[in-house]
Amino acid sequence: MKNLGYYNGKYDLIENMTVPMNDRACFFGDGLFEVAYVRNYKIYALEEHMQRMYQSAAFLGYNMPITKEDFSALLYELSAKVDSSDQLIYWQVSRGTELRSHAPQSELTANIWVTIREKVMSAPYEPAKLITYPDTRFYHCNMKTLNLLPTVMASIAARDAGVDEAILHRDGRVTECAHSNLCIIRDDGAIQTAPADELILPGVTRAHMIRACAGLGIRCIEEPFSLDEMMRAAEVVVVTSGMQFRPTAEIDGIKVGGRAPEIVKLMQEKLYGDFLSKTE
Amino acid sequence: MKNLGYYNGKYDLIENMTVPMNDRACFFGDGLFEVAYVRNYKIYALEEHMQRMYQSAAFLGYNMPITKEDFSALLYELSAKVDSSDQLIYWQVSRGTELRSHAPQSELTANIWVTIREKVMSAPYEPAKLITYPDTRFYHCNMKTLNLLPTVMASIAARDAGVDEAILHRDGRVTECAHSNLCIIRDDGAIQTAPADELILPGVTRAHMIRACAGLGIRCIEEPFSLDEMMRAAEVVVVTSGMQFRPTAEIDGIKVGGRAPEIVKLMQEKLYGDFLSKTE
Repeated sequence: MKNLGYYNGKYDLIENMTVPMNDRACFFGDGLFEVAYVRNYKIYALEEHMQRMYQSAAFLGYNMPITKEDFSALLYELSAKVDSSDQLIYWQVSRGTELRSHAPQSELTANIWVTIREKVMSAPYEPAKLITYPDTRFYHCNMKTLNLLPTVMASIAARDAGVDEAILHRDGRVTECAHSNLCIIRDDGAIQTAPADELILPGVTRAHMIRACAGLGIRCIEEPFSLDEMMRAAEVVVVTSGMQFRPTAEIDGIKVGGRAPEIVKLMQEKLYGDFLSKTE
Repeated sequence: MKNLGYYNGKYDLIENMTVPMNDRACFFGDGLFEVAYVRNYKIYALEEHMQRMYQSAAFLGYNMPITKEDFSALLYELSAKVDSSDQLIYWQVSRGTELRSHAPQSELTANIWVTIREKVMSAPYEPAKLITYPDTRFYHCNMKTLNLLPTVMASIAARDAGVDEAILHRDGRVTECAHSNLCIIRDDGAIQTAPADELILPGVTRAHMIRACAGLGIRCIEEPFSLDEMMRAAEVVVVTSGMQFRPTAEIDGIKVGGRAPEIVKLMQEKLYGDFLSKTE
């Protein structure tokens, strides 16, 4: 198959798939998702993604229909049906299906959604152009939920500005990008990224970056930084599964970073190397 | 039909309806909704609801497939297919359908969703029991979007506490309830409700209440009030299409209000009278 959509046991091309109108994703965005890259039919960092999903699902009180392990096996089974061995795999759970009611009126079981598309993960190391955008999101950004309207608005603003991503800021503090984490490399060579509180998603690549720092002897600081500190940093780097560790050339049309390319390169090699070695 | 679900031209019982997996409601909660009561097959305050939806849709850049007037006519056409003449009518638009991408990759046209269920609007005047709950929502509460996870969490907390609704508060300020507005009646006889900024939904019944105050010579103040002011108020009143003007007996297990029943009664008669007269 050129792509695959799956919902509770049924699958077809994504564009042919339908879901029940009463799925709580449709009315409330009452769901969680994860996205990972696949190479050689191997799903990169699957356990970490699954771990995060199940943690948030427990917090939200979802009744998951299968274990993490069975869910992972299902993803592998579906991945094998897609022609290309290089894929972007997306999976989602929603709280359940019921006539619309804010608080569920019966015991629900979560629904399982999957989409798989052909995609070659080649970390784009060409420096990014970004804009800044107010962070108007809620206080549950530490969960990867379907309540993504502010993210959509920021992404549309970035698209309309002809740039790659939007940097979100709240009360002068940089939180993260619309769908990436963000870090700066300081002039003292330390990497600084916002702490994993309820204002940012604790990204899988962000966790890899922090571990990589330890291995490489680079100091990593998890503390908030301001817009001003960002604009003056040695490097500004977008951190995400897809872009891995992508430096930034320009923010709001102003040239930034470019003063610590050797640290950027070191980190890129480390992260991309890990991706390659785990998906041999 | 006992109930009706509609999606872009197709309709059936709600529980039989499906929607495309790629509808942006499913992945992003990228949509808007409205709910109104129907009596004698007349949709109460339809124009006001439609006006609000189209205003938000314009703000979000939705490309609406039909005019407000045609949408209203469609709702009447669908309402007529349902057995009971007393209904709860829910309608929703989502930005469009496309392979998942935060910023749309093509020109989209909004999708139209409708559900209609039998429901008799009888404003419940039995004093409500409420709990307080932190307002963790985003800064677009002035739009009736599908990003409702914090509302769901608050509603579940209220259900689990065995009460009717949850009062949301942010930085000590009462904003509104999970799916209702809220006002207090002060000891000086004035009604006070949070201002219509981005932290609350400007409810249709709230607007009716403000107009009714003018007619009845009651002073109405649109200013924030604190949790403490609420707990000490002469009355605490839940304001929403369904409950209209419902006084509160208890918040977090503490007895509140009950000191201005004559103003409550006056307002109830005015609002419910308007509902009855417009749906004759």
